[in-house]
Amino acid sequence: VANETLSDVGEFGLIARIAGTVTPGSEIIGIGDDAAVFEGPRDTYLLATVDMHLQDVHFRLADMPARDIGATALAVNISDIAAMGGAPHHALISLALPPRLPVAVIDELYLGMLGMADRFGVSIVGGNITSTPGPLAIDITLLGDVPRDQLLLRRGARPGDLLAVTGALGGRAAIRLARDAGIPDAPAIPVPLPQVEIARIIAESHLATAMMDISGGLASDVHHVARASRAGIVIRESELPIAPEATQFAQALGTTATKLALTGGEEYELLLTLPPENVERANHLLSPRALWVIGVVVDQSEGMTLIQRDGTRSPLEAAGWRHF
Amino acid sequence: VANETLSDVGEFGLIARIAGTVTPGSEIIGIGDDAAVFEGPRDTYLLATVDMHLQDVHFRLADMPARDIGATALAVNISDIAAMGGAPHHALISLALPPRLPVAVIDELYLGMLGMADRFGVSIVGGNITSTPGPLAIDITLLGDVPRDQLLLRRGARPGDLLAVTGALGGRAAIRLARDAGIPDAPAIPVPLPQVEIARIIAESHLATAMMDISGGLASDVHHVARASRAGIVIRESELPIAPEATQFAQALGTTATKLALTGGEEYELLLTLPPENVERANHLLSPRALWVIGVVVDQSEGMTLIQRDGTRSPLEAAGWRHF
Repeated sequence: VANETLSDVGEFGLIARIAGTVTPGSEIIGIGDDAAVFEGPRDTYLLATVDMHLQDVHFRLADMPARDIGATALAVNISDIAAMGGAPHHALISLALPPRLPVAVIDELYLGMLGMADRFGVSIVGGNITSTPGPLAIDITLLGDVPRDQLLLRRGARPGDLLAVTGALGGRAAIRLARDAGIPDAPAIPVPLPQVEIARIIAESHLATAMMDISGGLASDVHHVARASRAGIVIRESELPIAPEATQFAQALGTTATKLALTGGEEYELLLTLPPENVERANHLLSPRALWVIGVVVDQSEGMTLIQRDGTRSPLEAAGWRHF
Repeated sequence: VANETLSDVGEFGLIARIAGTVTPGSEIIGIGDDAAVFEGPRDTYLLATVDMHLQDVHFRLADMPARDIGATALAVNISDIAAMGGAPHHALISLALPPRLPVAVIDELYLGMLGMADRFGVSIVGGNITSTPGPLAIDITLLGDVPRDQLLLRRGARPGDLLAVTGALGGRAAIRLARDAGIPDAPAIPVPLPQVEIARIIAESHLATAMMDISGGLASDVHHVARASRAGIVIRESELPIAPEATQFAQALGTTATKLALTGGEEYELLLTLPPENVERANHLLSPRALWVIGVVVDQSEGMTLIQRDGTRSPLEAAGWRHF
């Protein structure tokens, strides 16, 4: 396999290779959760996450105003911090810029990042700019903190817990795909809003056993929770909250709204597990919002299952966005 | 200026624009130093720095073994933390990878980063991988810490302080340029070693008033210290420690060894200022190494001056590597 390329191994294969080679250190949690966790000031953990957003891979300048692209790039990182129960505070931004990119576009990118930063109390405190012969790249490192007893990881789900999400799924993916397909009444692609407040309420209340954000698509992300928790998961299709746009565009896209909800993770809603007796209290605290209970955590030996509307049980595949 | 591009504004112009737009926050030090500074656990500050290394901009796969490229990328960030008196501890690595890049190259990149990480006690704890239609990009975020009373910034230089560097300059730039020019006996490009131990000794001893690493080239970087400290600086050409390779290749490169030493910052030696009475103590602590005193800090009104070997005084231009 000396000539193996990234296309052969795939992103997850590569992450597994890398995770196998990294040195153990003083960090609390290593590679695998949404953010890395370190000892912070007083009774806090410091959270750190990094994401690279590439032109023509993660965004296209023609698809969204530059301001929305900047806002979205930061929103994704804010969601990573929120998904562990944390509050984001400082961002470092690395930009690789094509020399012919108009400065007006860069200004708009920054204004978008600054707007999103302001909204969630994040300060942009540093970074790095370089020119590139390749696509525009926005690499954002975000730091945050969480009281130690409120940290939420992917690994805490226990058989008997319920599986819940915080909002409707598949809408943003449907819109993006509809625009790609040239469907005329497709609206503008919205900027996702990270669920920081909901995540903080859930973390503070100690009601959840595991949490992450839905970035790769629900079907894919439940596998992360299951694997980290050494558990199985059953999802009921009939309980999935489906975004109106997924319903609106599914037929024109040659797919189903359910499939869009299972694979489109771009809303950055939260996925969490909690004991059944905690659901009422959680909904009280989150009111007027509420959790959507979509399934249950089972023993690992039972594997991953989707119960379809007609009652048929099928294996739940880890379908989601693939970068390679 | 609606059609201004990055090429028109330049990297520093852009950083100035951005620094003017960022929100003030709880950080101790904002944009401008080698790393951002935050409140850390107990009596420490947390330091955070990020750098993007791009294929065909910052490195070429043909110029160095992939392992050395990985090691160099991390070394640059370690140097940023060291230059503020800090000890590096955790790294997050964002990779944008061309799909056809052999996995063997990626493995070598990681082995290089891991080797450098091990050497300086850094744990690689997270990151992010994506494919790119453009060049290979390695974006490294590095966290470190420093006892609060040992933090060193660019802004502390005072008139009367001496200006010193920790090692010979211009060698790595000379080698790289010699290889570019096809000069046959040009050696392999060395991996720079960040001066972590020297920087810690200087920080612990409280002997210096300002410090940074020489990454953009001495002539350029002294301007950063001068501007941050609202001071002027005089450098004596006769005191510059010139690397043997700069002397060896200068003529073939159509330049002078002094010019290579003034503009080639790739060794990541330290640049510091300290009161004259502290030099002897510093050299005692650093033994068998020693500081090279190359100039003096003067009043801001005196500006930036280079005293040439023949005694001629000329303005010291901020010549260095330009990305745009």
